[in-house]
Amino acid sequence: MRVDVLTLFPEMFEGVFSSSILGKAREKGIVSLSTVNFRDYSTNKHNTVDDYPYGGGGGMVLKPEPIFGAVEDLPTHQTAEGVVVKPRVILLCPQGETFTQKKAEELAGEEHLVFICGHYEGYDERIRQYLVTDELSVGDYVLTGGEIPAMVIIDSVVRLLPGVLGNEMSAVTDSFSTGLLEYPHYTRPAKFRDWEVPEMLLSGHHANVKKWRNKESLIRTLERRPDLLEGRVLSKEEKLWVAEWKKEKQEQNN
Amino acid sequence: MRVDVLTLFPEMFEGVFSSSILGKAREKGIVSLSTVNFRDYSTNKHNTVDDYPYGGGGGMVLKPEPIFGAVEDLPTHQTAEGVVVKPRVILLCPQGETFTQKKAEELAGEEHLVFICGHYEGYDERIRQYLVTDELSVGDYVLTGGEIPAMVIIDSVVRLLPGVLGNEMSAVTDSFSTGLLEYPHYTRPAKFRDWEVPEMLLSGHHANVKKWRNKESLIRTLERRPDLLEGRVLSKEEKLWVAEWKKEKQEQNN
Repeated sequence: MRVDVLTLFPEMFEGVFSSSILGKAREKGIVSLSTVNFRDYSTNKHNTVDDYPYGGGGGMVLKPEPIFGAVEDLPTHQTAEGVVVKPRVILLCPQGETFTQKKAEELAGEEHLVFICGHYEGYDERIRQYLVTDELSVGDYVLTGGEIPAMVIIDSVVRLLPGVLGNEMSAVTDSFSTGLLEYPHYTRPAKFRDWEVPEMLLSGHHANVKKWRNKESLIRTLERRPDLLEGRVLSKEEKLWVAEWKKEKQEQNN
Repeated sequence: MRVDVLTLFPEMFEGVFSSSILGKAREKGIVSLSTVNFRDYSTNKHNTVDDYPYGGGGGMVLKPEPIFGAVEDLPTHQTAEGVVVKPRVILLCPQGETFTQKKAEELAGEEHLVFICGHYEGYDERIRQYLVTDELSVGDYVLTGGEIPAMVIIDSVVRLLPGVLGNEMSAVTDSFSTGLLEYPHYTRPAKFRDWEVPEMLLSGHHANVKKWRNKESLIRTLERRPDLLEGRVLSKEEKLWVAEWKKEKQEQNN
């Protein structure tokens, strides 16, 4: 996979692109990660990339020329079979579709991703209309630019590429893959300060441990993210756990 | 405000903490941003910070000692009045409460934030129970660690601190502050390739421009994020726009 990021702050990506999983994926040749400073594609002598909005109002708007210029000047990317790939051109913006794990999986099937990171400016609408294939937002909060959201998406997509994650890392944090939040984890020491690991986990009784974990996973999801359970078909046992939990909660409230 | 980040990858933060708005806020002395490598608080000779989970299963679990040790060793932070502040200790994890703009505003009122970034491991449950004040998730997708989510939260919080954003930057991208998505922006050139700026915006008729923008903002929200309109009381004019939009959509479908 090839990833190009258009940004006015390429230095923001250095540490992230060379550390940990992204750094390793790059070293292994699974992904190429590059940044382009689109100020280099400014078409005026002051090197500006933004201008006042038509119709007045505060803020600045990113001009179309440097963004179109930078995207169109990217080297083309070919598949292993030598086919030139049309890139997905992703605009990071609060108006975009909310990014989810499903979208990460979809993007992991692409060969070439281009990210356009504005920075507190708005984007000229023609960039959205005629250049961009996807507008994405990583959540309902305001950030100063698209750089950190681009890192979010790149990290979540690259970790899905074959050969990136070792088995030792893949299991624990995959909360969203079962549709439930994870059960509680414990490791040594069995007693830290006054706080002990639940006896069940020390029992060595695998079937009971599994049951305990499934139950804790379900209860935690009920408590924290009931929205994740909408439309889920519960097993007989799960229904029992839910009923128990509701009863306990009711007793606490009385 | 003081911000401390516990991470095994402090180098990931260098570019982000020294660029753009965060870099400027730091230079102005509005925020202090530090990282701590909690491997330095390992209590065993191999310097490990994780261990196998009790009860078996894949993945590794972060041990409690290095995390407790690193947090408890942080310098205390005092307010301008010399009062020692208890930090908010934030754990980044997929099971956490979904981070929103409201939470950013709440955290912007704090004096000391501590972020704990695990990295593809799980956390020993005792960290959640006895050390952490908030568990946060930035969205429903899986990342390789808490580092990028910590950047998301720090960026969104620090930009809200008084004196950080100049007026010139604050207006345009604040999509969530009006409860609606933003209207389209345009800047020069009035004609780029074959694509022209809507005439309305060139008219200089301020009242009409304002109306056009309000309408576009509402329509864009209807199309992309109808969930944001739930519970909103629409004005007479807005109701008319919605009716028009519905009619147009129906005609397109016929």
